[in-house]
Amino acid sequence: MAPVHFADRLMAEVAGKKSQVVVGIDPRPEQLPPELAPGETAEAFIAFACGVVEAVAEHAAAVKPQVAFYEALGCDGMRAYAETVRIAREAGLLVIGDVKRSDIASTAAAYAAAHLGADGGDFVADAVTVNPYLGADGVRPFLDAAAAHGRGVFALVKTSNPSSADIQDLDCGGWPLYERVAGLVEAWGEPLRGESGYSSLGAVVGATYPQELARLRALMPHAPLLVPGFGAQGGGVEEVKAAFDADGLGAVVNSSRGIIFAYEREPYRARFGPERWREAVRAAAAEMREQLWEATH
Amino acid sequence: MAPVHFADRLMAEVAGKKSQVVVGIDPRPEQLPPELAPGETAEAFIAFACGVVEAVAEHAAAVKPQVAFYEALGCDGMRAYAETVRIAREAGLLVIGDVKRSDIASTAAAYAAAHLGADGGDFVADAVTVNPYLGADGVRPFLDAAAAHGRGVFALVKTSNPSSADIQDLDCGGWPLYERVAGLVEAWGEPLRGESGYSSLGAVVGATYPQELARLRALMPHAPLLVPGFGAQGGGVEEVKAAFDADGLGAVVNSSRGIIFAYEREPYRARFGPERWREAVRAAAAEMREQLWEATH
Repeated sequence: MAPVHFADRLMAEVAGKKSQVVVGIDPRPEQLPPELAPGETAEAFIAFACGVVEAVAEHAAAVKPQVAFYEALGCDGMRAYAETVRIAREAGLLVIGDVKRSDIASTAAAYAAAHLGADGGDFVADAVTVNPYLGADGVRPFLDAAAAHGRGVFALVKTSNPSSADIQDLDCGGWPLYERVAGLVEAWGEPLRGESGYSSLGAVVGATYPQELARLRALMPHAPLLVPGFGAQGGGVEEVKAAFDADGLGAVVNSSRGIIFAYEREPYRARFGPERWREAVRAAAAEMREQLWEATH
Repeated sequence: MAPVHFADRLMAEVAGKKSQVVVGIDPRPEQLPPELAPGETAEAFIAFACGVVEAVAEHAAAVKPQVAFYEALGCDGMRAYAETVRIAREAGLLVIGDVKRSDIASTAAAYAAAHLGADGGDFVADAVTVNPYLGADGVRPFLDAAAAHGRGVFALVKTSNPSSADIQDLDCGGWPLYERVAGLVEAWGEPLRGESGYSSLGAVVGATYPQELARLRALMPHAPLLVPGFGAQGGGVEEVKAAFDADGLGAVVNSSRGIIFAYEREPYRARFGPERWREAVRAAAAEMREQLWEATH
């Protein structure tokens, strides 16, 4: 039996749950709720991930664990990453491993096996982020694994950090580099289109500049967009609307700190405080879901 | 006491050992010597790394374990990666973790802590490779960690794979993109220059096209160059000579398959065969060292 197509699964999840929300699981040790102190342990990370997953399962289309924070704890951290992926998938959530891997040819294939391979691999998620700087033969092994196992890939096109302009905005014959990369992503993803019309090769596009987002949506009509930068990094509903198609599909929006550390900010701090951090996470995810859905329907 | 500067350590190692050789430790399961079959286990990887490290310790300036192959084995693989780094450092070899990590700001800082942080971290090496696509604030956390702990960073500038041209060769106002990136790397590395004149921010530059290499050497006079693509990927001594300064310093050349799987190719196959694979590794490393040193002195 052919595996279910990732982009179709993602669109079905969004439509079924009426949620375009991706919750980034970034276990920053210094921000973990006090009950999990000291935060720099694999146990604290797993407990935190459990709490977040349970709180957002009903409201999020997917979660996006950030492997860098886990990697910082060494081998124990990688065990906690594997556990986080497992817990989230068992809860029925799509999991996008935010790993931003890249390498050439057979080495990229090793990364693809690690993160998009057969079920049972410790780090295997439903999709991963990849860095496209090495070109087609750095991305293709991920696409091959995605096609074989019904998984997805999101290539970095335009990131949401201030100095993304250093390289991504360089003028390439009248186009900023990131638009050239967008064209490559649209082309590379062509063989992976599903019944939804979307490809299992999507793109990461920062929400800092809404005009850019609209243009990238047009340049990559078949790429699901993963839009970071909502909340803590400054983007709001108006800034991300341009990412969606006419049906409110075709994009998911990530918030990490704004949801998982909602207990630290108003109005959630006053309502819940650090003890009831799980409820703060749930409420923040529910609010983001509602805001996005209303603005796009 | 301030940590010893990475670029100075690297140049001292090269001059002291008369070796510009980096041996890439890429444990490809299907190529591991028969005595280590089945190759897809952490134990086989560790045994292989031990054999390689012992065989090349006298001839190589550094080793470069490729984390992708370890990551493909999941948590056990990451334990084997940590063990590989530990064994090589204990043998007195500089270790360049080929991790090609990249992310933004505080997330890049988590990767930097994982790979360039304080001694004792499982994955902490002497230097790592990073992907520059996210710009200065994606690279700077690695430089901060490098400065704090006397470690090094090699940013991808021009990679050796055929489709590196897809993005890296795009015309940016009369310059190929990779030359623009080279200019950024030279500038970003300025605060990290040591007594050798070289910065602890180096650059990965593929050896496929010698003219490119000469140009990149000129554009980044203070960046140590890490040149892959020697041997299995097609480059020879003549192709990489342009990477070195007038003293034969300023660059190191990586060979992976050509050395670690030397037992599979002539003249080493006939001389040693698979049983004496360690001797084949040693002989291939010695030969590469001699070839490079003679061609540059």
